[in-house]
Amino acid sequence: MDLRPIFYVVGALLCILAISMSVPMFVDMVHNHPDWKVFLLCMSITAFFGGTTVLTNASDKPFQLTIKQTFLLTAISWFALAGFGALPFWLASETDIGFTDAFFESVSGITTTGATVLTGLDTMPPGILMWRCMLNALGGIGFIVAAMAVLPFLRVGGMQLYRTESSDKSDKVLPRMQKVATAIAYIYFGLIAICALCYWMAGMSGFDAITHAMSSVATGGFANYDSSFGAFLEHPHILWIAMIFMILGGLPFVLYIKVLGGNFNALIRNTQVRTFLGLLGGSILISTLWLSMKGVLPFGEALLQSAFNIVSVVTTTGYASADYMQWGPFFVVFFFILTFFGGCTGSTSGGVKIMRYQVMALILGRHFQKLQQPNAIIALHYDGRTLPDDVPYSVMVFIFGFLGAFIVLALALSMCGLDFITSISGAATALTNVGPGLGPVIGPAGNFSTLPDPAKWLISGGMLLGRLELFTLLVLVMPSFWRK
Amino acid sequence: MDLRPIFYVVGALLCILAISMSVPMFVDMVHNHPDWKVFLLCMSITAFFGGTTVLTNASDKPFQLTIKQTFLLTAISWFALAGFGALPFWLASETDIGFTDAFFESVSGITTTGATVLTGLDTMPPGILMWRCMLNALGGIGFIVAAMAVLPFLRVGGMQLYRTESSDKSDKVLPRMQKVATAIAYIYFGLIAICALCYWMAGMSGFDAITHAMSSVATGGFANYDSSFGAFLEHPHILWIAMIFMILGGLPFVLYIKVLGGNFNALIRNTQVRTFLGLLGGSILISTLWLSMKGVLPFGEALLQSAFNIVSVVTTTGYASADYMQWGPFFVVFFFILTFFGGCTGSTSGGVKIMRYQVMALILGRHFQKLQQPNAIIALHYDGRTLPDDVPYSVMVFIFGFLGAFIVLALALSMCGLDFITSISGAATALTNVGPGLGPVIGPAGNFSTLPDPAKWLISGGMLLGRLELFTLLVLVMPSFWRK
Repeated sequence: MDLRPIFYVVGALLCILAISMSVPMFVDMVHNHPDWKVFLLCMSITAFFGGTTVLTNASDKPFQLTIKQTFLLTAISWFALAGFGALPFWLASETDIGFTDAFFESVSGITTTGATVLTGLDTMPPGILMWRCMLNALGGIGFIVAAMAVLPFLRVGGMQLYRTESSDKSDKVLPRMQKVATAIAYIYFGLIAICALCYWMAGMSGFDAITHAMSSVATGGFANYDSSFGAFLEHPHILWIAMIFMILGGLPFVLYIKVLGGNFNALIRNTQVRTFLGLLGGSILISTLWLSMKGVLPFGEALLQSAFNIVSVVTTTGYASADYMQWGPFFVVFFFILTFFGGCTGSTSGGVKIMRYQVMALILGRHFQKLQQPNAIIALHYDGRTLPDDVPYSVMVFIFGFLGAFIVLALALSMCGLDFITSISGAATALTNVGPGLGPVIGPAGNFSTLPDPAKWLISGGMLLGRLELFTLLVLVMPSFWRK
Repeated sequence: MDLRPIFYVVGALLCILAISMSVPMFVDMVHNHPDWKVFLLCMSITAFFGGTTVLTNASDKPFQLTIKQTFLLTAISWFALAGFGALPFWLASETDIGFTDAFFESVSGITTTGATVLTGLDTMPPGILMWRCMLNALGGIGFIVAAMAVLPFLRVGGMQLYRTESSDKSDKVLPRMQKVATAIAYIYFGLIAICALCYWMAGMSGFDAITHAMSSVATGGFANYDSSFGAFLEHPHILWIAMIFMILGGLPFVLYIKVLGGNFNALIRNTQVRTFLGLLGGSILISTLWLSMKGVLPFGEALLQSAFNIVSVVTTTGYASADYMQWGPFFVVFFFILTFFGGCTGSTSGGVKIMRYQVMALILGRHFQKLQQPNAIIALHYDGRTLPDDVPYSVMVFIFGFLGAFIVLALALSMCGLDFITSISGAATALTNVGPGLGPVIGPAGNFSTLPDPAKWLISGGMLLGRLELFTLLVLVMPSFWRK
């Protein structure tokens, strides 16, 4: 296999990462914090590695990637970006963490998970806070592009549903794809800008507005306070704004292009969007009624807290505005199950995602028909077209892979000495890129800092595995992948 | 739909149940316990209902059941037997429970689950103890026959793999099927007799030997002591005998016919049997090493306790010889995951079962190949033959249905106020017909008596749903089932 084009692209991505590091550097400079030198150092290291990799692997001919190269490229990119992205956390003056924790924090950022090992965020230097949220933002746009351009091509988890007619002839598709990707990038950063403006007008400081806008639209979930969005409870407007932008981050971004192109119904007519919003609405309704009727919270607060925390978990953002572990046993199981949903495909959100559950529901419906009429031939229709035969298959295998990975990870975490609820919710929240787990240790009121190192590496691996939609990574450990 | 043949068969089954009630009646008579009158009463009621149903629905013509009638018959039979089987628990003098608990105990018996709401078993009258284990035995043979004769015909959960070539022409198959069923019944009750003899020789009383032999071979799990098989720890031979017969109960019973017919390798050559034994061996090895190396138990005891409790959970029997909740956090997650395995298809054991996991593994293996070579056409081979296309599909849908039911049941249990581990392990242990759950309430050292009534009804429903392999029951709630 020719590795040169792979290294070339990875090098280019590292150069982008290096350039991004200038932002927290300037932030620390402006705030007169000496850590700007740390960012300068990390930037230099990253730029050096990235630059030399680009230069030594550059080629005159335009290259075209094979399937195997694409798998390898996707996996290596995320690992490399996570590795170099960890440098500032490791070297910064006030984080006081080893490389394990630094890598965990970086993986959590770039996979838009939002699980944190840092404590004392409220007094953390601004550069580090900025860098965390920037990793969320970069990871978010990276994943949308991967979900649009790479996963359909690799046929991972039923994403071939989104192949364009001529996907196989990449010479024709590439220019159009680049145009779409550029449009999506504009929309993505435009949403972040609007979100920041809204946050600022609702009472956040300029710095908080910009950083939280990045982690909101990216459905990342890093916040600048140990109490996450609990810090903004006095400004309920901020929580409602956050909900709107988390939801916007969880919708398929290609639809925004259609909306901007004049097709205003594109979003609301989309079956995945409708199911997603219906799921959110239904969950919030149940939760609000339960909390207010059981007298746990008054109605207004029940609505706000239900809506915020449910939107946060279902979009896989992972902000918390309250310790919902205290709401009663029902909510522990409820939030555990919500962890597995995820937003729409083609968004920044993680997890299994709505499309796959919809396809599963179609398959189940057909199965009930076939149990009664074994010889009936029933085609599956999704979003106005007939599903190709391999999509239901891929979707089912994907969900299985997800469950298999969940079981293995939960078992491995329990071997590290983690208790039952920490093991299984930790495995779930890592793979789905949600962020907080359940229970007293890693729940909405806790964080991941006290876990043993092996558990942190396992969860880091789980976050990457989930973000890469499992099979992109798992296929690399198959012996057949490495045969000629 | 013509319901007469359905009622006819259900009535006949109730008559068999009534006749069975004479056994505990005689037991109580011999022991001079007044509850023999309770059994006489229950027997009369059951015989009356069963008899009149048979008489009013008898027909001169031989009947042939349609698919829909078979679904309905299977479901109604189990509900009716569970309902009438509950009468002795409800009316007996020393059980002191309401109908909810009586129905729970009966369902748990006939589904071979073995979860109990009774306490003070050590001093319970012998008739009741006998009736519990007889329900295990009747449920076990009932399920083997259903798995052999009914489920393949209904194509539930990939069981069509076991259709004979001419399954559709039931006039030819029926006589052969009856012969096989008779042979299996002989083998089943023969195994129980041998097991009882072994138990007795190893030190059990005659009564304990017979009752526990029934619940062992049926992989049921009812025991005559509150501490389950912990009561026999002074006679380790008894535990090893129990393991052997639980494993024998978890193997495909049709293979015994082949073995008795001279094909001595039929068992050991079978891929499902090998995987099942390999899974058991591997799990016991890990557990023994972990327990002895961590110093929780000395090696000998670690081996005995690991082997016994793992065999008990994986075969879905549900005896316990120790409170493995005390062995450390790893074992909580480990036993939770073991709950989902189950024995072989065509055995008395419940759960997803080995065949389905094997088919899933084949599907996953093919998926990895197809990710790399999207256009490759790869047939799946299982146990020496090519899998028909609808088997992998049915298997996947089955596992999904299982997970969906698990999620709904866990959520419903948490709504009854059960804590996290009780809700999710209760849902799992009910659907898989294992018996004990995890945690302090329903774990190996606890029982189900303290649960609120709605939770008991939910778990009863879960046990029946699991035993009927989900779709046999779920198909009945589809509106399309009731359309003409």
